[in-house]
Parts: sequence; structure tokens; C-alpha cells
Amino acid sequence: MVLEKIQKANDIKDLDPEELEVLAEEIREFLVKKISETGGHLASNLGVVELTMALHLAFELPKDKMVWDVGHQSYTHKLLTGRKSGFDDLRKYGGMSGFPKRKESACDAFDTGHSSTSISAGLGLVKARDIKGEDHKVISIIGDGSLTGGMAYEALNNASALKSNFIIVLNDNNMSISPNVGGMSNYLNGLRTADAYTELKKGVEDTLAKIPGSGEKIIRQMKKTKSGIKQLFVPGMFFEDMGITYLGPVDGHDVKKLYRVFQDAKRIKHAVLVHVITEKGRGYEPARQNPSGFHGIGPFDIETGEPKSVSEKDSYTDVFSKVICDIGKKNPDVVAITAAMSDGTGLTRFSRKFPERFFDVGIAEEHALTFAAGLAAGGLKPVVALYSSFLQRAYDQTIHDVCLQNLPVVIAVDRAGLVGSDGETHQGLFDLSFLSTVPNLTILSPKNRWEMADMLRFAVDFDGPVALRYPRGEAYEGLEKFRAEIIYGRSEVLYEEEDIAIFFVGHMSELARSVRNELKEIGYSCSLINARFVKPLDTGCLEELAKTHKLFITIEENVLIGGYGEQVLEYVNRAKLDVAVHSFGIPDEYVEHGNVEVLRKEVGLDKEHVTKQIITEFISMQR
Amino acid sequence: MVLEKIQKANDIKDLDPEELEVLAEEIREFLVKKISETGGHLASNLGVVELTMALHLAFELPKDKMVWDVGHQSYTHKLLTGRKSGFDDLRKYGGMSGFPKRKESACDAFDTGHSSTSISAGLGLVKARDIKGEDHKVISIIGDGSLTGGMAYEALNNASALKSNFIIVLNDNNMSISPNVGGMSNYLNGLRTADAYTELKKGVEDTLAKIPGSGEKIIRQMKKTKSGIKQLFVPGMFFEDMGITYLGPVDGHDVKKLYRVFQDAKRIKHAVLVHVITEKGRGYEPARQNPSGFHGIGPFDIETGEPKSVSEKDSYTDVFSKVICDIGKKNPDVVAITAAMSDGTGLTRFSRKFPERFFDVGIAEEHALTFAAGLAAGGLKPVVALYSSFLQRAYDQTIHDVCLQNLPVVIAVDRAGLVGSDGETHQGLFDLSFLSTVPNLTILSPKNRWEMADMLRFAVDFDGPVALRYPRGEAYEGLEKFRAEIIYGRSEVLYEEEDIAIFFVGHMSELARSVRNELKEIGYSCSLINARFVKPLDTGCLEELAKTHKLFITIEENVLIGGYGEQVLEYVNRAKLDVAVHSFGIPDEYVEHGNVEVLRKEVGLDKEHVTKQIITEFISMQR
Repeated sequence: MVLEKIQKANDIKDLDPEELEVLAEEIREFLVKKISETGGHLASNLGVVELTMALHLAFELPKDKMVWDVGHQSYTHKLLTGRKSGFDDLRKYGGMSGFPKRKESACDAFDTGHSSTSISAGLGLVKARDIKGEDHKVISIIGDGSLTGGMAYEALNNASALKSNFIIVLNDNNMSISPNVGGMSNYLNGLRTADAYTELKKGVEDTLAKIPGSGEKIIRQMKKTKSGIKQLFVPGMFFEDMGITYLGPVDGHDVKKLYRVFQDAKRIKHAVLVHVITEKGRGYEPARQNPSGFHGIGPFDIETGEPKSVSEKDSYTDVFSKVICDIGKKNPDVVAITAAMSDGTGLTRFSRKFPERFFDVGIAEEHALTFAAGLAAGGLKPVVALYSSFLQRAYDQTIHDVCLQNLPVVIAVDRAGLVGSDGETHQGLFDLSFLSTVPNLTILSPKNRWEMADMLRFAVDFDGPVALRYPRGEAYEGLEKFRAEIIYGRSEVLYEEEDIAIFFVGHMSELARSVRNELKEIGYSCSLINARFVKPLDTGCLEELAKTHKLFITIEENVLIGGYGEQVLEYVNRAKLDVAVHSFGIPDEYVEHGNVEVLRKEVGLDKEHVTKQIITEFISMQR
Repeated sequence: MVLEKIQKANDIKDLDPEELEVLAEEIREFLVKKISETGGHLASNLGVVELTMALHLAFELPKDKMVWDVGHQSYTHKLLTGRKSGFDDLRKYGGMSGFPKRKESACDAFDTGHSSTSISAGLGLVKARDIKGEDHKVISIIGDGSLTGGMAYEALNNASALKSNFIIVLNDNNMSISPNVGGMSNYLNGLRTADAYTELKKGVEDTLAKIPGSGEKIIRQMKKTKSGIKQLFVPGMFFEDMGITYLGPVDGHDVKKLYRVFQDAKRIKHAVLVHVITEKGRGYEPARQNPSGFHGIGPFDIETGEPKSVSEKDSYTDVFSKVICDIGKKNPDVVAITAAMSDGTGLTRFSRKFPERFFDVGIAEEHALTFAAGLAAGGLKPVVALYSSFLQRAYDQTIHDVCLQNLPVVIAVDRAGLVGSDGETHQGLFDLSFLSTVPNLTILSPKNRWEMADMLRFAVDFDGPVALRYPRGEAYEGLEKFRAEIIYGRSEVLYEEEDIAIFFVGHMSELARSVRNELKEIGYSCSLINARFVKPLDTGCLEELAKTHKLFITIEENVLIGGYGEQVLEYVNRAKLDVAVHSFGIPDEYVEHGNVEVLRKEVGLDKEHVTKQIITEFISMQR
């Protein structure tokens, strides 16, 4: 095994040239095998095996700094920096992260997770190097998908003024999670398929060369000039125009060629973009055929490429997917928007049925929300489906463009709460808090699959901005007999007793219900209330239940700071209700990767802990 | 007066052609006179007089939809849509807004305030029009400064695929609030000063023409091709490459030419960008000479251009400006970053003293924070100075790039609290709430000018991310005798008595002090505590004072939801402290424009209201 020879960073440099091809093959085999067992990101990692090898050959780690945009494509980088054994516990609690982490290795220069940050971070590392008078290279590796994010453009705009070396590697596979969209993608396509262009260029050169006396001079002159004429001979004028040298396109699966172009790139005294063409899923046919399906996956069968376990049950996303199509059929004003997450949010179905009413804007959450505001101002009913942690990017647009004008935009906040193995960067634990600060916004969360459907219909019918938050994973099928009409601002009392009242938000229904059952079994009287609306708060319900209860419990999968529990406490205090309040939620820290059930135990959102705490609390009150 | 003939939208179309020049002059005179009395945005409005007139001649309002990016340049638009009398109360409470407002006029198609939103919103209006089968034009007017914002690029990237008309007017004056920076600016400069380019093009054409037989054919062929060769003959390839037709550059002060180009633009069946060159401050020499100074201004003397009243006292920004220079002198690792607000944040001084350690990234808050994270990861100590309402744009970057890695970035949050006449879009009322949700972040706010200096020094010395929030306007010079050392996580007890304890955040010092004086005068015992740290909370202080007090009062100029008061209440509840809590802050609604003192009265943050409420509260507790 050549792979066995790689024990730490730079070991790859000691290999014989002919071993490199074998290594690439072994890495692919290793990745397919390991990820088929643990799950993880596959297609993107298979695409950058040779690219990563070439980077490790051309640069020196940890002295040189590599920033991996998004970072889920860093598996080969992890392998080449001595973290092979980490793959046994990939993305498991306490195990190796699926993203670069500075605390994991000195060879990880910057933590990533969200898209389009690498050029900004890389530029910061470059400026720090120059100011401190240090001497190393900084390389940001960014996908063409990430290049649709505005931040990447902001950073390029700044990088253009650099007077020192900064290497930006554009890993171009014409995909983000979904196939790419937009002008930039078309432009890159043009560079990729440069044949027609090359012919034309040659034709002009030949013609010019024929001019007696001055022809060759003109060609030389043209090649030298800095103006637009250069476009004739240099692809990538888009970047050149910004002041960034363009090298490429280069075959991303040819280690030798890549190595050479990196050596060239090192010598340039400003920002240089190396355009590398890769193939997502390369070397494993099922992933190559269906790169979107093999983007982030669970364990699968290597032979067939089929997932090892498929849930029979619908996820909340599945329910959203079906119901939004049904709504779209009846209401021609409904339009749907996503930001490069059409599969993940379940909007692919809608996009097929109503292609003219579906918009994938690329990795561009900021634009997505303001675009939706424009659609609403124009008289339509936009539904924007995003993941909770990515919606953080559009906080200002939610405040400033959607809610200030009170525009009827529905924000479908998917992956809210703990998401599991993607870890810290992807947990959706802040949305209830940051959305609660926004005036005019209504916030809802469903207790089960039927309520998910009802709430989505309610949200679309409502004449004002609404955020509907729901988690990743299977939609709860319990509490099915409770399906009272959704009434604006009103909670749903499921069981009304005395003493203790448990208020839960959304999918905490399952936990809340089991805690109540536990409490009932040992003889406590306990009510169960589905908050339904986090904003506005159902203050009438709080007032009413305060008369018959001594303790209000709130449960939410969101940070406690600024969350539902604090709003309940605030009202109880303001209205001077005679009842104690105790809240359960996520503490003030980042929650790392791991199985969701394990993580819930870690943060104290499990039946045993919650039940015990409630009992302690209640007993202490009796004294 | 020609201006008298304009009573409502489209009246301008009834003017004789020769009256237009007079109108432009009268509008400029009117604007200079009015703004010299009320204050407001001047330079940008003087720059777009003819552009706005031409738009109003070429389009039909309110049928056609104009979206003004940022919107502070909409004064002529307001004049031409019958809002002349509104200028008497411009930006005053209850008076006309300085920004487009849908509730103010049907001719305002979309509310703006923050930068770079107009293409996104315009694209939404276009899609809504097409889906609804309506027939009108949509025009987004965006400055070259706003084009440095990533959102604008995200929107352009999407607009490129349009198959219907969408007119983007690029109002290019080579300035945002400060002069522009970056690759895009260089590129636009190239288009503006196209002489060298024109000459070169002509040279090539002439040479080609000389080729016997085939020369002219090549030129024709080149002009027809869609490839990069077109760059030879068509400026604006940057946009053309994205799939957006480029028209221009056009003289932005020539109404006739502008009118003609808009007629051309209307006929194009996809997105078209009209590049208009304008001069900021045109027609009023002091503004032309100093467009940055006349961006947003108070009342001034028309003759001299001098402000009518200059405060003798330093603002918090002035203190920041001086101290950060002093710190920068001693510590070579300190670098400063702003996003096109170098004058506004007081960093111009730093930029002159330490040009190599200063970065104006353009209107790009997202990039600013991640860039700072990169600088910090590279071993420097970055200080990012932004306005509170613009920091909303970088919420995700604060969570994901700065604080997750616990990087020592100082965020100087200027214009926090009520900002006054810029109104709803610019109030800094959310920062304490959204920043409080972020793990690892320390949040500070100073009570007066001396503490501002001390806290900035503390923040720069601290080894972790810190947000220092302070308001617009004069730095408080009271409470000058209290200057205890800043200790991490510790409040400052200014007066310790019994019964009532008033905790205030930052510049609420002035109000809190006067309320306490009032209470003292009528015989109450009252302590006064400077919170200093909003995060982490000084729980020790709360525990200690709970022993001797019956009522905790909190005062902050931030929304109550998720703010300091709720954190105090949460702790008092969790620790079961025997004390009541009553919080003052901003209610859950947008606060419109007006004088800050007037606004404080409106939201109940004035001495009379707070004092009265405390007394009522305290008396009710005695029963």
C-alpha cells in the first residue's frame, strides 16, 4: 500500500513519481470504503484527489496555509496530513470532523463550513503574513459553486489590489450541491469549452501574420497590452479585468500539470487564480452519475451505490415538498426560491412541476431574501426554503427588506435545531433568537407531520412575513389526534391538568410528551402545551394556565439566550403571573458534530435529564 | 418657476424641452436651500438631478417601478412625484423620510436604506410582472459604490438569465460614502476613461483595414462574434460576459442623451445595464469639492458651505478615532478595517498614520468580518469598525468565522442605539440581542468618553472576540469621577444604596443618572450600576445586590427582546434571587426617523416616563 507510507504532512513528497497514480487510486478506494460505512461527503472528495495531492507536493505544510472553502472536500487533505485513523470515527461525537479544524491539525489553517469564505480568510492570512514580514504561501481552494456567493466576489474585489502572492484555486466541477446557475457559471462554461474560442484566436493570428511587415508586430503588441485586446489571447479576462492573473484551465486529474501550474502561480507577485477542471464523483461510478445524491450521504452499499437504510417515513422536508406542490397547484401566485439547496429543501419536485415559478439563486442567501421581498412587493407569494444556519446570512435582509415593509414572504427554515454530523457550523440553533428580534415577523414551528402541513398552508395564506422552522429528519407521527385549526398567535393545549405545564416548541413535542408520560407515571399532574407560535407569544394562554399551575416548563431546540423560554419568562414577569418558569434549551456554546440523540444527551435535552430537573425544581418550590 | 409646474408624477412630461435645463437648475437651488436648513443627503442628490429627470421623462410612474439603491439619492424623485412640500419636514419626526417609502407614495416601488439591494428587489419585481402577465418596466438605479456589495453581484449573476426587460442604471460617480476601492472600481475607471482604449481599437481597425481583400471582412466578423474578441469593439465585456447587455458610458448630466439611451434600453429583451457617469455634488461648489463631507450633513451656511453648528465636544467616534491611533502606534499588530465608512467610523486618521495597516474593503460587511478573522488567524489584532445596522449583514460571519474559532477580533459597533433622522433602516437597535446569542463573544458598552477609551484598550488587549458598542453623537462627559479599572465580566457599581438598583448599558448612563437623581430627590434609596459587560453578565454583582435591593431596573437602547434586561431577568429567575426586575428598552417595532430626543420620548426612554414607571412599580411591590 502506497497510502501506508503517508504518516504525516509532506510524506507524499518522498514517493516515487510512479507511485502517485497508485496513491490516487488507493485514496479513492479508501474514501469509498470508509464513507460507505460512516457516511459523509463523497462526490466532492473524489473530485479533488489529484488536486489535493498536487497541492501537497507543491506546497509545504503547515508553513504554507491552505483554506478549503466550505471544507467538506478536505478528506484527502486529512489523509495526507496523517489523519487516516480518524476516518474510523468520521463525524461521530468526539471523532474527527468532516470539516477542517484548526484544533485538529496545524495543517488546517482556517475552519470552514459555510460557503464562499475562503478568499476573505485567505486574504486576511496574506495581509497578516506581509505585515509580519513572514514568508509563506497562502492558498484558498474554492469551488465554482461557492463563487456564486457574494462574499467571494467582495473578497476578489479586494484581492485585486494585492502586491504580493495569493493563490486562489478555482475547483470547477460545474456543481454546487445542485448544478450551478447564473452568469458566472455560463462564463466559466465558456472557459471550459474553449475550443471554438481557440480556433477563432488562431484564425485572427494567422490573418494578422499575413500582413506584410507589420503583422507579427501587431500580434506581439496585442499580447503585451493590458487592455481588452488581451482577451483575444488570454482566457479569463473577467478575472484579469479585476486585476487578478488567470492561469488555466488545467486538468484537475493530472498531478504533473497541476504541480507545474502551482509552481508558476507561486512566482506571481499578486493574486492569481488557477482554474482547475475536476469531475465530481470521479472514480466511483454511482457518485459520478449522481453527484448530487452522493454529496452528503449516509452509509451505502459499495456495489450498488444504494443507501444501507432508507427511512420509510417522511421527513419534515418531504412533507414540505409535497404540500408546497399542492399549494402551488391551487395558487398560481405561489413561487418558490432556494439557494443551491433544491434537493435538500425538497423543492426539486416543485421545480419540475412549476419550472417558471421556481428560482434557485445559487449560494446567495442575502439575495434570496431580498429577491423574495421584491416578488412579494410585485404581488406574488414567495416561499424561500433555506437551512437555519444559512439563514443567518440573511438576517439583515429579513429585517430590512422583508419585515420592515411587512411583505408576505414565507421563510421555510429547514434543518432547524441540532443537525448532527455536520457539526458546529451547520447546527440550526440560533434562528428562534435572531428571528424573534425582528418586528412584524410571525414565527411558527410544527409538532408533527400533520401540523407541518397545516402550518405551511397557514403561512402561505397569512398576509405578512412568516418563518416556519422545522428540523432535519423524520417527521414525528405521534400526537396525531391533536389537529386543532391553526389560529394566529394561539398555542394548542394538548392536555390540561394542574401544577406543572410543559410548553414545547415544534419537534420537541416528542421529548415533551415522553417527559410528561414519565411525570404522570410517578404521580404528577402535568399539562402539555404546543407553543405553535414563538412569535407572537400566546400571552392569553400563559395568563390562563398561570391560574392553575405552579411551574411553567419550556423546551426548545435553540439557544436559551433570546429564545422562546426567555420570552415566556419575560411575559410572566411583566404580567406578574404567579408561576415559576424553568427553561430547557441549548446552552451558550457551540455544539460539535455527532449523532443527534447523543448530542441531545450532551446538552441535556433528553428525557431522563429533563424529567429529573423538573422534579427537583417542583420539589424545591414546595418547601 | 418651472418647478412650480411639477405638482405630481409625469407633470415633467408637459414641460417644453427648453424648460428642462431651467428645471435642473431650480431643483439644485431648491435642494441646496432646503438641505442647508434641515440637513440631509446633498452631494449624491445633486449628482442625479438630470438622471432622475430623464428617468421620469422616459418612464411612467407609478406604472413603471423604480428601485433606488440605498435611496438617499431619491430627493429629485420625491420632488418630481409631488412631494415638494415634504422637504419642510425632511427627516423630522412625522415628516418626510429621506429614503423611498412605499407608504409615502405609490411612485416608491420598494423601500431601501442599506446598500446593494436594488438589483435583487428589482429582479423580484420583474419576475412578478412576468408571472402575472403584466406589462411595465422595472428600473433599478444603483451606484458604483453599491456595486462593491456582494448581494449586487449575486443578483447580477441571476439577472443574466432573464428573457425579459430589466433596466439596471449604474450611477457611476466613483464614490460610495468614501472613494471606491477594488477591482470593480478599477474596471469601471477603465470604461470611464476609454480614450486609450478607443485609440488602440482604432489602431487595430486601421491596420486590419489595410489588409488587402480580407481586412474589412475580419472587422465585420469580429463585431459579430459573441466571443471575447467583441471586447475590442464593445466596452463593458464584464457585464456582457455575464449575459447582461451593456449600454454606455453616457453623460449623466445630459437629459437628452439619457432619454435616448433609456428608450434603447426599453427595447432589450433581457437585463440591460446603462452606465451613467455623474458628478457627486454637481452645481454646488463646496459639495463638489468635498462630496464625502456633503454626503449626509446637518444644516449649513450656503455661502461658505460651513456647518451651522459644530459641536465643541468629541463624539464617541472621535474618541475611538484618537485612541485607536494611539494604540496602533504602540502595537504594530493592530490593524483596522472598515466597509466604506472610514470617515463615519473615525478611521481616516488611522488610515493616514498607518496606511499599510488600514483596509477599506468597500461596502462589504460580510467580507470585512471574515477577512478580519483571517487577519487574526494570521496573528494580528484586527479592529473592525462598522455601524450597528450594517453589522446585521455580518451576523453569520461573526458566528461562523470569528467566534467559532474564538479569534481575537474587535468589532467596534458604532451608531448603536437610536441614530435619528436616517430612520428605520439605520437605527442600531438589534446588536445587543443578536450579538448576545453568539458563543465566545464578549460585549461591552461605555458609560462616557473616558470609559470609551478604557474599553477600547481593554478590547484590544483581550484574547478573544469582543464587540464594543457605542452610539452616534457626543460622548457623555458626566460621571467623570468613576473610572475604575475594566475587569473582565465585572460591572461597575457607581452608587450603592438599597431598595432600587438601576443597571444601565453604555450611553444610557445619562438617563439612568438623571432618573436616579430624581428618585433621590423625592426620597427613594437607589443604587446605580454601570453594566459595562452585556456578555458575560456579572452574575456575582446581581447576587450581591439582590440581598439589599427589592427592585432591579435595567435600561438599554436596544430592543427588549433578547437584550440585556432579559439576560438579567433570566439570571435572577435561574438563581432564584429574591428581587423584582423591570426592564426599559425599545419595544418590538421599527422606530422611524426623527430627532433622537423626540424618539426617546416616543419609545419611553426619557426621564419622566422611566422615573414614573419605577415609582409605580416600586409602590405596587410594597402592597
